[in-house]
Amino acid sequence: MTVPSVAGKREEGIANPLFEYLLRLGDDRLVLGHRMSEWCGHGPILEEDIAMANIALDLVGQGSSLLKLAGETEGAGRDEDALAYFRGEPEFRNAQLVELPKGDFAFTMVRQFLFDAYSVLQLDALQNSTFAQLAGLASKALKEDSYHLRHSSDWVLRLGDGTAESHARAQEALNELWRFTGELFESDAVDEAVRDKGIVVDQAAIQSRWQQVVGDVTRRATLTLPTAGASATGGRRGRHTEYLGHMLAEMQIVARSHPGAKW
Amino acid sequence: MTVPSVAGKREEGIANPLFEYLLRLGDDRLVLGHRMSEWCGHGPILEEDIAMANIALDLVGQGSSLLKLAGETEGAGRDEDALAYFRGEPEFRNAQLVELPKGDFAFTMVRQFLFDAYSVLQLDALQNSTFAQLAGLASKALKEDSYHLRHSSDWVLRLGDGTAESHARAQEALNELWRFTGELFESDAVDEAVRDKGIVVDQAAIQSRWQQVVGDVTRRATLTLPTAGASATGGRRGRHTEYLGHMLAEMQIVARSHPGAKW
Repeated sequence: MTVPSVAGKREEGIANPLFEYLLRLGDDRLVLGHRMSEWCGHGPILEEDIAMANIALDLVGQGSSLLKLAGETEGAGRDEDALAYFRGEPEFRNAQLVELPKGDFAFTMVRQFLFDAYSVLQLDALQNSTFAQLAGLASKALKEDSYHLRHSSDWVLRLGDGTAESHARAQEALNELWRFTGELFESDAVDEAVRDKGIVVDQAAIQSRWQQVVGDVTRRATLTLPTAGASATGGRRGRHTEYLGHMLAEMQIVARSHPGAKW
Repeated sequence: MTVPSVAGKREEGIANPLFEYLLRLGDDRLVLGHRMSEWCGHGPILEEDIAMANIALDLVGQGSSLLKLAGETEGAGRDEDALAYFRGEPEFRNAQLVELPKGDFAFTMVRQFLFDAYSVLQLDALQNSTFAQLAGLASKALKEDSYHLRHSSDWVLRLGDGTAESHARAQEALNELWRFTGELFESDAVDEAVRDKGIVVDQAAIQSRWQQVVGDVTRRATLTLPTAGASATGGRRGRHTEYLGHMLAEMQIVARSHPGAKW
């Protein structure tokens, strides 16, 4: 294992790479779960409304468990609520992909599909971590996200290979989202530093398998994969799009209005 | 069994009392579930946010199943989505209690408690209906609502017997909500007409047991039961507060924007 260099330690978050790593995992799911929960009561059909709420619940639950674990490794006494509700935007470590506004139904489902395909591969690797608590959470989350992937794949197929309008919307969503997918596969000093916790995720291997899954489903959905272009990045180091701040303001308002309140 | 009189048939809904009865059951749960879902992502703590979303999901799921069954008995080809998204406000049959805005956390939890205590007793009776599909739905929903009642009772105790502020808020909620509880126990020609389907719910007996449960929990929560006063009514016949229309506008906008859309 590589001990982070002194230079490396000066980078944000490197002081406690395990904490940092768990924040990334947890924030991806908390933020995406919140975006999905914005559909609550606004779905196009009751069955889908219920399915989307279930997916949101799974993701927020995973985020909560991962932030709880992050808090325990931090040793600074912050629990999952403190981490969810009392961190500012630059302290969030989610990829920018998950913070983008929910958009229309096609945008939501294509984004969910791109994330699910990533998450399933990532969690599958994390199941084998020697960090037992993380392996346990990954194993539970993998079951949930495998269902999410089936659900979002089905929708990508249905929308892409559907009406002219649903196809156009799905293609537009894919075009807009594509440049946010590269960030998911970035690897930096944090990833290297957590290897001593048995957290070994081969980002290149995951990316290659992700491309296969995404290529296969989009092809069957008669969608065209955008050509690679400039890739958005920065979320893992706290640099976010303008949208995260607005989302956090809404998500955190109740807790921040009553700091330390006993409910 | 009493065949509805001709005069009775002129009353709204009496033409098909079973359909009408199932709408009442379904709409109570759909509307309350929607109100609860408005907390999605705005809970004071993650665990509670997740619990409230779960409760919302259960209720919307129950509402969906009951409206599906209502549609089947109507024989007019309306499914649960048509009933949820394409009825106007005067066609909704929920009690006014469940349509009131969610208010603060205390209001939400006290309202939920008052409804849960009612629902558990109602579903317990409906389990014994000779109308097998309804008995099955009631039995499944009873398991869920028994959990909801434990959860909301716990909160009423915690808020009522908590800080000065939480006590004041819970008491205020109880005072505001009290006049909406009487409607839950009304009995009319619809209730009588569905007896031939083995739907026999003794409203007086339920009300008496409800008063015991509510009296017991509120006493332990150091809350004072309001004295009986004028009771709100009309929801069962489609007369609603100003709030339902706004809620339906929001709930129905997506489906109504794309009528007949294939998703």
